[in-house]
Amino acid sequence: MDIRACLFDVFGTVVDWRTSVSRDLAGFAKQKGITGIDWLEFAVEWRKLYQPSMDEVRSGRRAFTILDVLHRESLDKLISRYGIRGLSEADIEHMNRVWHRLDPWPDAVQGLTRLKSKFIIAPCSNGNIALMVNLAKRAGLPWDCILGAETARAYKPMPDAYLNSCRQLGLAPAAVMMVAAHNNDLKAAKAQGLKTGFVARPAEHGPGQTTDLAPDPACVDVPARDFVDLAARLGA
Amino acid sequence: MDIRACLFDVFGTVVDWRTSVSRDLAGFAKQKGITGIDWLEFAVEWRKLYQPSMDEVRSGRRAFTILDVLHRESLDKLISRYGIRGLSEADIEHMNRVWHRLDPWPDAVQGLTRLKSKFIIAPCSNGNIALMVNLAKRAGLPWDCILGAETARAYKPMPDAYLNSCRQLGLAPAAVMMVAAHNNDLKAAKAQGLKTGFVARPAEHGPGQTTDLAPDPACVDVPARDFVDLAARLGA
Repeated sequence: MDIRACLFDVFGTVVDWRTSVSRDLAGFAKQKGITGIDWLEFAVEWRKLYQPSMDEVRSGRRAFTILDVLHRESLDKLISRYGIRGLSEADIEHMNRVWHRLDPWPDAVQGLTRLKSKFIIAPCSNGNIALMVNLAKRAGLPWDCILGAETARAYKPMPDAYLNSCRQLGLAPAAVMMVAAHNNDLKAAKAQGLKTGFVARPAEHGPGQTTDLAPDPACVDVPARDFVDLAARLGA
Repeated sequence: MDIRACLFDVFGTVVDWRTSVSRDLAGFAKQKGITGIDWLEFAVEWRKLYQPSMDEVRSGRRAFTILDVLHRESLDKLISRYGIRGLSEADIEHMNRVWHRLDPWPDAVQGLTRLKSKFIIAPCSNGNIALMVNLAKRAGLPWDCILGAETARAYKPMPDAYLNSCRQLGLAPAAVMMVAAHNNDLKAAKAQGLKTGFVARPAEHGPGQTTDLAPDPACVDVPARDFVDLAARLGA
């Protein structure tokens, strides 16, 4: 395999969104005197609105719209559904930007740093550029550049999300490895000719997770325990 | 000034294109047994075709086309004009990618590293993503992300080149400083509401340079000797 670049899914693969969102919002709620809400449940409910919101764009019913805007629309729905009151516009924007403040899995920075010594490394996430930049700066993720939905003008798993990212690096898909903790992401990438690496994140959805516990051999070229193990397997 | 991000012109401001291109091509020509060409002149002639090639896109006569393609078209013209023979397609592509192999000015990496500790730093160049990524990886430029013509879909000094870059960072233009060694770049950025920083590069065009030797007070907010001085002036 002659790989020149590794592209990474981010939510769930590089960062632990569920724990990060719930912990951050719980702390904010405490400051604001908001009580009676299960913030772990809130985080999961917010995430449930993620795919449907992007489906509007994927289907062509809606012009390309960045994830910060889609997240905000979903958050507004949840604030109403949970009956949360007394939040200012600045408060709601602060809550929305919790997706810019996600913590990486423990192996992520070390593994990415090793991979960067041999490959171009970039996110290929559905998160927008500002989200990815702020997240990376806070978490210390050493990306070479930020790619993904906003630069490709397409949400994964649409083919253009992968193909435009490869094109923007000036590389053939076969010279690029997509890395994710989600088999469906890798299946879509492989269908466009990319190489694939799977890293298991069995705690992404908390205890009792039943999906993506193992790589699907039909779409995974390189399975790895974590990013450090992936670096070793790729000779970085 | 409440600056959150610094955007940088690259050709001439971060890297010394004239010396780098001529030295690299002279070495390649020697390998190939090509003689009788003044490669410093060749580099300057290539650069002279740069603005006219982008004017086709700026004017709307041509759909957005990345710089690697425009550079290649200009190179093909020069190879023909200079009567250079016997080059393979791979040779010509190697020559075209000399723009991915430019050396930074001596203060660039140190200054950018300091600026990165306080600000988001990104190129806002007319170079395309692959060019900027390869150049940065070779030269050790620690960008937080790659912005510029390809992400903005507009060549500087068109307003969208600056405005879309700010928007992609989720920042108001007033929270972003454009840094360049060229007053016309800064004039265009300032007209869109960005802050501006000027760094003199009196050797960009070789001995006898007459342009951009000093900041134009009409469009420069912060003049600096080099990137390290700029970092100091911005408290980074």
